Amino acid sequence: MDFVKRHIVSPGKTPHLKTVETDESGPFKDKDAAKQFTAETVDKIRDLQYRMFVEQKQSLLVVLQAPDAAGKDGLIRKVLGQMNPQGCRTYPFKVPSSSERAHDFLWRIHKATPAAGMVSVFNRSHYEDVLVVRVEDLVPKSVWSKRYDIINHFEEGLMERGTKILKFYLHISPEEQLSRFKKRLENPDKHWKLNVGDYAARDKWKDYREAYEEVLDKCSTRDAPWFVIPADHKWYRDASVASIVHDTLVKMDPQMPPVDVDLDEVRQLYERELNQQRG
Amino acid sequence: MDFVKRHIVSPGKTPHLKTVETDESGPFKDKDAAKQFTAETVDKIRDLQYRMFVEQKQSLLVVLQAPDAAGKDGLIRKVLGQMNPQGCRTYPFKVPSSSERAHDFLWRIHKATPAAGMVSVFNRSHYEDVLVVRVEDLVPKSVWSKRYDIINHFEEGLMERGTKILKFYLHISPEEQLSRFKKRLENPDKHWKLNVGDYAARDKWKDYREAYEEVLDKCSTRDAPWFVIPADHKWYRDASVASIVHDTLVKMDPQMPPVDVDLDEVRQLYERELNQQRG
Repeated sequence: MDFVKRHIVSPGKTPHLKTVETDESGPFKDKDAAKQFTAETVDKIRDLQYRMFVEQKQSLLVVLQAPDAAGKDGLIRKVLGQMNPQGCRTYPFKVPSSSERAHDFLWRIHKATPAAGMVSVFNRSHYEDVLVVRVEDLVPKSVWSKRYDIINHFEEGLMERGTKILKFYLHISPEEQLSRFKKRLENPDKHWKLNVGDYAARDKWKDYREAYEEVLDKCSTRDAPWFVIPADHKWYRDASVASIVHDTLVKMDPQMPPVDVDLDEVRQLYERELNQQRG
Repeated sequence: MDFVKRHIVSPGKTPHLKTVETDESGPFKDKDAAKQFTAETVDKIRDLQYRMFVEQKQSLLVVLQAPDAAGKDGLIRKVLGQMNPQGCRTYPFKVPSSSERAHDFLWRIHKATPAAGMVSVFNRSHYEDVLVVRVEDLVPKSVWSKRYDIINHFEEGLMERGTKILKFYLHISPEEQLSRFKKRLENPDKHWKLNVGDYAARDKWKDYREAYEEVLDKCSTRDAPWFVIPADHKWYRDASVASIVHDTLVKMDPQMPPVDVDLDEVRQLYERELNQQRG
């Protein structure tokens, strides 16, 4: 199955999120089949990531956005964080600090973008500045409404240096979210995640949906597309994102760089050392 | 076996590296037994790291130093990089850039130290400024000889904020290094790692050893100890470092923080939502 085709938001064809299924299970006959697929795909991702790391020309930026409990953390743990840690960093973007707030909204984001060879994974992102900021009315519409263009131009600048951008919206149903909230309540080790605000956000489900739809509509571009990932099944979420990341890396086609040392010289040095060692 | 006791460099008891075995195999009857031990220990590390991440009070800094091909990358891939990527970042310290060189030698290091709850892994570190810099005569002795104190005071400052520091020297024999160089020559995918300078450094093996011994002597402190890890066997290297990291996290004893929300309130919110959902 072509997960890219299935879940990409093509410019001009933004779906109504209400009509997009959240519990898709794709081609997998069961959970185990999906997990097997994910494990195999993660291995292939790791191999390509290694090449990109050594090549040191291109880079990859993965943006994750989702309602609470939709599974960003799990996706990072099981898929994205399985890459070689020397070439991959995750960045959480929480409520901005006072020094961050003293700058434009992209200032803290820019610092976390990937250098050549590297992968950055954003757990939340600059898109919060047209999502929570819009829905919770943290700045006037005259301010946030200009940000879609600002974001698009910013992302173009990143791409110009060889950064490929993938943006994932994890799409869950309110029912699934509530059942995950229940599990948090039942597990004391998860109590630190409890938050009264999560319930308040549920009252604004429709507002958030509209805000997301505008993001998808204005900021899913040909080269920095958004994907809507059905996320009620964790195993489908992991498998589909893994597949899309893999396909992207295949297209980026990273190459081991040409060897810039004289192989014969190194071989001679090796032989010299070996002879010395033998005494 | 107590790997901490076995490999720690106690203040005042710096070993002569020439007399420290590089091919120790410890309590393991074979490679598979060591790998099994490492896998189990890594699982326990992950659990403790999660607690530290949630606790958000303490942090861990792991410093790796070693001759070329001693296995820093492998150790990161197989042990340290197995931690949850949201709470762990690795930082390579290569030849300083011009802007880094325009600052004191700890400037770039300080920026990479772990925030509360986080782990930083340094692939090379500030210790290069008394190792390669000393052996290759990059600054005068009057400069580098003051750096041991500067480093100790810097590390004290980190500890004062709750950062635990572990420093590992991966100890391999020149014979093992040469055999790994051979494998690089034989594997085209490793050719990018080839470097004429690696052979030049072998001519200065004794100088580097002396420089390391002075580091161990002056900078292995009670609270920020150095460990000398026999690293000819990759599986022993991984197992011993995993064990030391695990023991350290056990001693740090991170605790899930007290829940700062009103559980009854959250339960009521949950019930309200559930009733609404049932319609």
